[in-house]
Amino acid sequence: MSAASQARRRRGADDLEIVVFEQSGWVSYSACGEPYYLSGLVPDLDRLVARRPEEFWARQIDARLHHRVEEIDAAAGKVTVRSPDGTETYGYDQLVYATGASPVPPAIEGADAAGVFPLETLDDAAAIKEAMRTAKRAVVVGGGYLGVEVAEAFADSGLETVMVTSGSGVLNRSLDDDMVDLATREAVAAGLSLVAGHRVEKLVTESGHVKGVVAGELIPADVVVVGLGTSPVVDVAVTAGIPLGPTGAIAVDARQRTEIEGVWAAGDCAEAHHRVTGRPANVHLGTVANKQGRVAGINLGGGDATFPGILGTAITKYRGVEIARTGLTEAEAAAHEIDAVAATTSSTTTAGYWPEAEPMWIKVVVDRATARLLGAQIVGGKGAGKRIDVLAAGIWNEMDGHRFSMMDLSYAPPFSGTWDPVLIAARKAAEQT
Amino acid sequence: MSAASQARRRRGADDLEIVVFEQSGWVSYSACGEPYYLSGLVPDLDRLVARRPEEFWARQIDARLHHRVEEIDAAAGKVTVRSPDGTETYGYDQLVYATGASPVPPAIEGADAAGVFPLETLDDAAAIKEAMRTAKRAVVVGGGYLGVEVAEAFADSGLETVMVTSGSGVLNRSLDDDMVDLATREAVAAGLSLVAGHRVEKLVTESGHVKGVVAGELIPADVVVVGLGTSPVVDVAVTAGIPLGPTGAIAVDARQRTEIEGVWAAGDCAEAHHRVTGRPANVHLGTVANKQGRVAGINLGGGDATFPGILGTAITKYRGVEIARTGLTEAEAAAHEIDAVAATTSSTTTAGYWPEAEPMWIKVVVDRATARLLGAQIVGGKGAGKRIDVLAAGIWNEMDGHRFSMMDLSYAPPFSGTWDPVLIAARKAAEQT
Repeated sequence: MSAASQARRRRGADDLEIVVFEQSGWVSYSACGEPYYLSGLVPDLDRLVARRPEEFWARQIDARLHHRVEEIDAAAGKVTVRSPDGTETYGYDQLVYATGASPVPPAIEGADAAGVFPLETLDDAAAIKEAMRTAKRAVVVGGGYLGVEVAEAFADSGLETVMVTSGSGVLNRSLDDDMVDLATREAVAAGLSLVAGHRVEKLVTESGHVKGVVAGELIPADVVVVGLGTSPVVDVAVTAGIPLGPTGAIAVDARQRTEIEGVWAAGDCAEAHHRVTGRPANVHLGTVANKQGRVAGINLGGGDATFPGILGTAITKYRGVEIARTGLTEAEAAAHEIDAVAATTSSTTTAGYWPEAEPMWIKVVVDRATARLLGAQIVGGKGAGKRIDVLAAGIWNEMDGHRFSMMDLSYAPPFSGTWDPVLIAARKAAEQT
Repeated sequence: MSAASQARRRRGADDLEIVVFEQSGWVSYSACGEPYYLSGLVPDLDRLVARRPEEFWARQIDARLHHRVEEIDAAAGKVTVRSPDGTETYGYDQLVYATGASPVPPAIEGADAAGVFPLETLDDAAAIKEAMRTAKRAVVVGGGYLGVEVAEAFADSGLETVMVTSGSGVLNRSLDDDMVDLATREAVAAGLSLVAGHRVEKLVTESGHVKGVVAGELIPADVVVVGLGTSPVVDVAVTAGIPLGPTGAIAVDARQRTEIEGVWAAGDCAEAHHRVTGRPANVHLGTVANKQGRVAGINLGGGDATFPGILGTAITKYRGVEIARTGLTEAEAAAHEIDAVAATTSSTTTAGYWPEAEPMWIKVVVDRATARLLGAQIVGGKGAGKRIDVLAAGIWNEMDGHRFSMMDLSYAPPFSGTWDPVLIAARKAAEQT
């Protein structure tokens, strides 16, 4: 929808017809907000809709819900679309492929039972919310961002909730092990009930409804949400001969063009240039999807925009525990054969003597030879997480830890120490080089 | 003390004797924390002391309290020092001039009455706290950072408190008028009682004790704190022939050397290179003073450090209203004959549908020709203020608003919209060019 909006902004309806095919019944909504609908913080699903279809229609963007593109004939410039009314073919001059990512299906016995859900669309959220009405016990399978947020939502809703992860703790695919340990310890202290280091062996069912999760032990559950990550939706693209990149997502250039003339791709289904590794990456984040859609739409509309790449910046929280990351972890740097060193500082979210001071740990990863900032991870109390953005800005601008540490950041006791801890963490990391 | 610590770290006591003369009875304390001692949030003054004199003595840093340097003979390498024991002369090879800034004395009739205070040292804080015990009504003269923080402290302590400022609202020397209006409106909504646009004509006294402040009207007061800004303490330097720069503070190079061989200067008494104007500036902020002291100490100790300059980044709050700035305001840009344009966005501190979402306004100032970021100002609820650091990092790295707007910043509904408002504000400003 970002692409459609930007294209429309540049070319009027008499100049460019825009049709959007959307397989679900929703457009332009905040999937990231769904856990907070489950918890009740967001009182109804409509609040998560940024723009209703009518708003697009009013701008001559013909958004068609419950329409799924089944096939693309890129040579002929045609798509085959299935809808409740049947299957039809539409011609196009320019195509934006923006199918997103979908949950990795659980290859677990019993996963098709009633009471077991993914959480992707608003319909999923509505179904889970309905199941929560009668549920007493919940299990969240997976310790990623979705798992953390749904576990919080369930627990805050009064469900007896257990998270099961095969990793050593929460967010173990996003953070280095030492930061996983800190994040996990803090989340557990905040009430997270966790079974770590166990794959789910199977789901126990009764009359077709889930009754429990076996992961080392049997954990009773009336409702189970499975969040084992997402993968780019590229099936139709593959059949159409639109090339994928090394990540398995669609290869695009900086203007969001695929390798097929007239076909663009943007969002979770497309690759993005990683500014630190210099390699293609495929992350599934609304921030990146929005920006890429915007770039595709501007270009399609005759403008000239480039997508500058990503750092993989992300943030979440479990109750009062904020967790954020950007750039590369130490482990990711090693996987890319980058010789990195790191330092982790223990500090507070405000001046130490401020009564609301909460613990905060910041890990900064730098290149051993140049002290260039490569990545950062933060775990801490209120006010900790968003500090990742300053570190992201430093990495984005290819600063080294020494230079970064001397930046003129804001200070007052309710907000930080005289040297904001991000500055100290960067300096300590640079001093390891 | 930063300079002394860094010098000692590089040169042992057998190699370098370090003597510190301090006119007050305190070293290494957080002046910025004093308002929060007044409010009771910080229960005792000792909490504001970062390092006690004993800690410095233990590292062979001979910190002498109640010693005031009266005269410097730079040619002979001697200082004349007055202490309770009399006046003595000490020789030196290297001198660091770090006298800070002191409150501008109020040229107001009655300002010498009992119950009227500056707030600079811990002794001032102790005296005000004592006066608060019997006071019922307080007036804060001045609407700057100190005024805002002391007004909050007084009001939160139950005193009937009025702020008097000659400006149109709070922080009128730090923000553009439109942001002053927003900050003032929000602070007043949060309980600030303000008499704006009035200079204090005189203080009314009775038996030598303040009874009220006349500023258009008579405002009764048992305790008055005057915060009319601070000026660099350069009297001894001037007499010694240490050259000042155009701001009236001591001229220094990037290594914190004054123009006199063997004499360094750092902190509020010294100038700093402003990275946006390219001109010397003199700001009185602990962040800058700490960094400059560190640079002077490293260099004095035989290392090689440079101070990279400032942006004038600052932050404060009045209850739940956070206010921050960095770089140049529109007015400051105009004063420096920089052709600037600006945009102000109205957004929220979190996703709009998040229940704790609070209003946030971000003004971004850019160069009209290049869209380069020049400055930013923020007013908003919890989580708003520290966002200034991301904008500071963008200005620091000479980013333009377009490039800045595409940075990969963190997003989750409890923290921001999909596009963090700082990104949108920068883009809107750049679109004005």
